[in-house]
Amino acid sequence: MEKRVSEAVIRRMPRYYRHLCELYDSGVTRISSGQLAQRLGLTASQVRQDFNCFGGFGQQGYGYPVEQLRDSIAGILSLDHPRTAVLVGAGKIGQALMSNFRFDRVGIRLVAAFDSNPELCGATLFDVPVKSVDEMDAFIKERNPDIAILTLPQQYAVEMARKLADCGIKALWNFTNTDLRLNEDGPQIPVENVHFSDSLMVLAYRLKEE
Amino acid sequence: MEKRVSEAVIRRMPRYYRHLCELYDSGVTRISSGQLAQRLGLTASQVRQDFNCFGGFGQQGYGYPVEQLRDSIAGILSLDHPRTAVLVGAGKIGQALMSNFRFDRVGIRLVAAFDSNPELCGATLFDVPVKSVDEMDAFIKERNPDIAILTLPQQYAVEMARKLADCGIKALWNFTNTDLRLNEDGPQIPVENVHFSDSLMVLAYRLKEE
Repeated sequence: MEKRVSEAVIRRMPRYYRHLCELYDSGVTRISSGQLAQRLGLTASQVRQDFNCFGGFGQQGYGYPVEQLRDSIAGILSLDHPRTAVLVGAGKIGQALMSNFRFDRVGIRLVAAFDSNPELCGATLFDVPVKSVDEMDAFIKERNPDIAILTLPQQYAVEMARKLADCGIKALWNFTNTDLRLNEDGPQIPVENVHFSDSLMVLAYRLKEE
Repeated sequence: MEKRVSEAVIRRMPRYYRHLCELYDSGVTRISSGQLAQRLGLTASQVRQDFNCFGGFGQQGYGYPVEQLRDSIAGILSLDHPRTAVLVGAGKIGQALMSNFRFDRVGIRLVAAFDSNPELCGATLFDVPVKSVDEMDAFIKERNPDIAILTLPQQYAVEMARKLADCGIKALWNFTNTDLRLNEDGPQIPVENVHFSDSLMVLAYRLKEE
């Protein structure tokens, strides 16, 4: 049933999940596809089609039970499966993630950060131990974390990605403002490239439209 | 010609732009729709359709001249139109943006940051003056910046967004992990909500697939 789900549908799933969490937290127990569509800027038919890709989650005309739908989507996204992550680069953006980002909400535990700055190594920042990059290989081979978060300077991104894949990291969350691609040059593992500038450029486009 | 361009096409434009900048910087002068498609994980036909929404940019069979295509897309995204921005909240994520993010690359100049922490007010961080939030209204009314970047704690996001829109801010770039919506409750100006967690959830999904 979950085979051949399009990229666009997969990318909407986290948005449904976030909204369902918000609805649940504010005490809403049931929601129609139309109401959910309105929150996300979609159509009711699109919402129903998206859910049908995973077998559908409700009875026509009765709306969806919020808690159950939230949990079903968490299951699809595998958020109920605990994962571990390491952070590579404990500079400003790394520390911003360590201090603000709710990893626990997506089932992830941050087990270590690595940096080349000797002043940071050995410290504990926001409950996360910071280690020297020299200890990274051994740590990853021993602890076998799932995800590496790349928050190091851009010029080291490609080399580090390859190294992490070789050590057994299974996926990369990349904040280095460079696209790591799954080709002969890049790592052969899933990558999500985070590009802040893309949304800012969309905003510039909207400003022009105004 | 630019009327009725779909949301999906608009969202791909920044990605084309980034890749064309990279190609140009690495000395590539001409690229086919097929090569460009491969870089972005699209099909050649999709690339040609996207560009046709804006009148098309090349002659069939000759490929696109990289520099000219880059500049055309910059024009569509209005990156050639200089804008000013203020940052609201000079904590970790605010400072990470101030220190790392290349605002100049998207035609934006960061003219001030605002914070409620008296220890930060009056300081200059990464060439940006940090002022008290008490001075914000007057500053915005006088200097008339285009964009406000929300990097303050989530619980103040909605109130601040409304206040900024009332002061004359024209668009919001929102890093507070809460969706600001363009409805009766939210600000009546364009908003881009940045949700780090969405891409991490997609990564969790891909890990399950492996």
